[in-house]
Amino acid sequence: MIKKVLIANRGEIALRIVRACAEMGVRSAAIYTEPDRYALHVKRADEAYFIGEDPLGGYLDARRIVNLAAETGCDAIHPGYGFLSENAEFSRICNERGIAFIGPSAEVISRMGDKTEARAAMIGAGIPVTPGSDGNLQDLDEALLVAEKLGYPVMLKATSGGGGRGIRRCDTPQELKQQYPRVISEATKAFGSAEVFLEKCIVDPKHIEVQILADKHGNVIHLFERDCSIQRRNQKLIEIAPSPQLSDAQRDYIGDLAVRAAKAVNYENAGTVEFLLTGEDFFFMEMNTRVQVEHTITEAITGVDIVREQIRIAAGLPLRYQQSEIHYRGFALQFRINAEDPKNNFLPSFGKISRYYAPGGPGVRTDTAIYTGYTIPPYFDSMCLKLIVWAMDWEDVLDRGSRALEDMRLQGVKTTASYYQGILHDAEFRSGVFNTSFVVNHPELLNYSEKRHPNDIALAIATAIAAHAGL
Amino acid sequence: MIKKVLIANRGEIALRIVRACAEMGVRSAAIYTEPDRYALHVKRADEAYFIGEDPLGGYLDARRIVNLAAETGCDAIHPGYGFLSENAEFSRICNERGIAFIGPSAEVISRMGDKTEARAAMIGAGIPVTPGSDGNLQDLDEALLVAEKLGYPVMLKATSGGGGRGIRRCDTPQELKQQYPRVISEATKAFGSAEVFLEKCIVDPKHIEVQILADKHGNVIHLFERDCSIQRRNQKLIEIAPSPQLSDAQRDYIGDLAVRAAKAVNYENAGTVEFLLTGEDFFFMEMNTRVQVEHTITEAITGVDIVREQIRIAAGLPLRYQQSEIHYRGFALQFRINAEDPKNNFLPSFGKISRYYAPGGPGVRTDTAIYTGYTIPPYFDSMCLKLIVWAMDWEDVLDRGSRALEDMRLQGVKTTASYYQGILHDAEFRSGVFNTSFVVNHPELLNYSEKRHPNDIALAIATAIAAHAGL
Repeated sequence: MIKKVLIANRGEIALRIVRACAEMGVRSAAIYTEPDRYALHVKRADEAYFIGEDPLGGYLDARRIVNLAAETGCDAIHPGYGFLSENAEFSRICNERGIAFIGPSAEVISRMGDKTEARAAMIGAGIPVTPGSDGNLQDLDEALLVAEKLGYPVMLKATSGGGGRGIRRCDTPQELKQQYPRVISEATKAFGSAEVFLEKCIVDPKHIEVQILADKHGNVIHLFERDCSIQRRNQKLIEIAPSPQLSDAQRDYIGDLAVRAAKAVNYENAGTVEFLLTGEDFFFMEMNTRVQVEHTITEAITGVDIVREQIRIAAGLPLRYQQSEIHYRGFALQFRINAEDPKNNFLPSFGKISRYYAPGGPGVRTDTAIYTGYTIPPYFDSMCLKLIVWAMDWEDVLDRGSRALEDMRLQGVKTTASYYQGILHDAEFRSGVFNTSFVVNHPELLNYSEKRHPNDIALAIATAIAAHAGL
Repeated sequence: MIKKVLIANRGEIALRIVRACAEMGVRSAAIYTEPDRYALHVKRADEAYFIGEDPLGGYLDARRIVNLAAETGCDAIHPGYGFLSENAEFSRICNERGIAFIGPSAEVISRMGDKTEARAAMIGAGIPVTPGSDGNLQDLDEALLVAEKLGYPVMLKATSGGGGRGIRRCDTPQELKQQYPRVISEATKAFGSAEVFLEKCIVDPKHIEVQILADKHGNVIHLFERDCSIQRRNQKLIEIAPSPQLSDAQRDYIGDLAVRAAKAVNYENAGTVEFLLTGEDFFFMEMNTRVQVEHTITEAITGVDIVREQIRIAAGLPLRYQQSEIHYRGFALQFRINAEDPKNNFLPSFGKISRYYAPGGPGVRTDTAIYTGYTIPPYFDSMCLKLIVWAMDWEDVLDRGSRALEDMRLQGVKTTASYYQGILHDAEFRSGVFNTSFVVNHPELLNYSEKRHPNDIALAIATAIAAHAGL
């Protein structure tokens, strides 16, 4: 078994990995840059190492991290999500140094990270993909020709992009002409590659993704799907498992597709196969070769501890479950509580958390690295808390979500929590039928009023008086 | 449906009921006495009413509470556990005033509260009961005769007792002579009745109890069992669902017994049928006619929201589930985190919570009314938090429990948390075979060392400096 895991990440996912290690009796080593000196993942890991002043640089320094792991006796590295998690070179260096990378091989990461290669692999395996260009585009002229053939609107995508970045929708040849140089420029800066390709734009699709687990012995299983249609500008806001929009037949169909996709590329460890659903058609979109932010809701409905399985797989152990042993129960929702002001165009709202009270009671889970008095640094992602709720029925999980959002207290920064209350009470959302345009089609949901808690104010005053009086 | 529920309780169970009401769209009204002026159940309920200075008196004043409910437009009262929850008179007054009592009828409470009547009812229904006296004892002479026939050791019990009080074990006629007047005196003071009876003492039994739900339409189901063998002086410490000690056949057998017991007395609402297991024999012990502290672990394994079902049943709705739809999954543990010092004979340790950090991550639930800065008043029960963990396998749930106990921070008072860590790592406990003598047979588990968290200290200092510097 693996003895010590270096966690090449920060925030809630680093804490999630610390917890999995603790449950497995595996030692954990955190890394941190200057703004994370007093971060929770640093406090809770068994060991912690400073990797530089630069807030982001340290977390992206593959060589330094692998050297640190080797020097401190770590036999595995968990990359979490973001940062180096889908960096093939990072996986390769780990491998060279004899350190287990908790994720797929460099070859698979590289192949799935190249969106046109991934498309080709899926076409080869008989997985339906969105109609698009046959590989990367040579130039704008080819782009215009392909777009004409596909029919507008089209999506112009960076071949090395991901996470919703490096993507532009073009409704006309004029727009394509405008966007072409922009996407190339953006892709060069963000991903170090100028390659782009085209796909037909699936209008108002549903975003459905399948969680898979694959071990080193050729066993691949899926853990059912997640519905991530509630998103804004390609950033997921509320995720749901299973999708309330699928029939059992559709569920089995895409589960099988995802397993076939993983097998086609000799996939290993946890991964996610993302599909777009339009009408009755599923189209492969991309494969994420890492643990996802929303793995939590799959854990809630299946009972499988995905991070624990990741570590076991990296240690060479076979999967603990066969497909026939995986069942889902009830519905789970995840709310990404972002430190943003929805009323101000979702502008990030960093600063000090003056008060945090974790919601409790039945069917509620929180994953967060914040605490009362913690200051959210401005250098990282604005997601500061994941609130997960689970219940046996669709209506019940909506009510539980609403209750848990209300139960939580997170003060000092603006968050998306109250905005989500509106979504939970929207008739279309409650009907269980919605697509990725839901957020943009419901601008009225931004007109919520922040709830004030008069009892909280009275309590704060009373507590202050009591403290002053030395009670 | 019920529109507004008065919650005739305090602390975590009052908050649990507030949460259920919130999820159901039902208004909640809290009551409080002086020491609970700033309690969380008061803050979180939709309304809150002061019912007197006397810390305990207010919560026990049946007439005043029912009047308050009537005056404030409540159409139901939830009694929680303890206080008036098993007071037949309280149920009767509610009924008289046309307020739904969320629990069984006065007649059933009264019948099950009288332990000799309950025994007679169970014998009538063909439920095995512990061999014992034929009803209440006339005097000490009869007690000595019955004890001789049963064989020592015997248990001398107050007929109106419950919750582990009013019970003495007698190993010899001399002990019985000594204890007889004591139990009568204790019973008279505590329960207002001098009636006592005798049962054969089942030595080193396992405590197994079955959760049942019964509606007003004659439907009764069980939600499997809980193993409450880990107890000290008849007070439960760690509860487990399902019991790792039962075979499926045994599980079905006692589930059926519990349903039969409930039907025999026309039971209504949630209830628990407690059994002692010795060898292969189950003996009925008592029926608790209320929601139990440990209902949470049954919720974890079955997905049924027991408090929600209680309210639905009181509103006259039929059960939402048939027996065939109830399945359990995985294992759940509940740790009763008591503000007590295990090393000092479990002496209560009331005072101010200087810091509380709720554990998070997968499979963790907390039910508590404490928060950082809250002062635990000395008038009530010492249980200040329920930590519930769930996982698919026995070994995994033990590891998760250990991690969650470690994850939690509860400072300012002594608690039983570190003591439970020792139990979780004990080989006998981990083997899944233990009985009610576990705690007394393992005095060495009191020799734990309180973990100090050096990182926490560093953080506290850094935070204090930052606050001082106005950062």
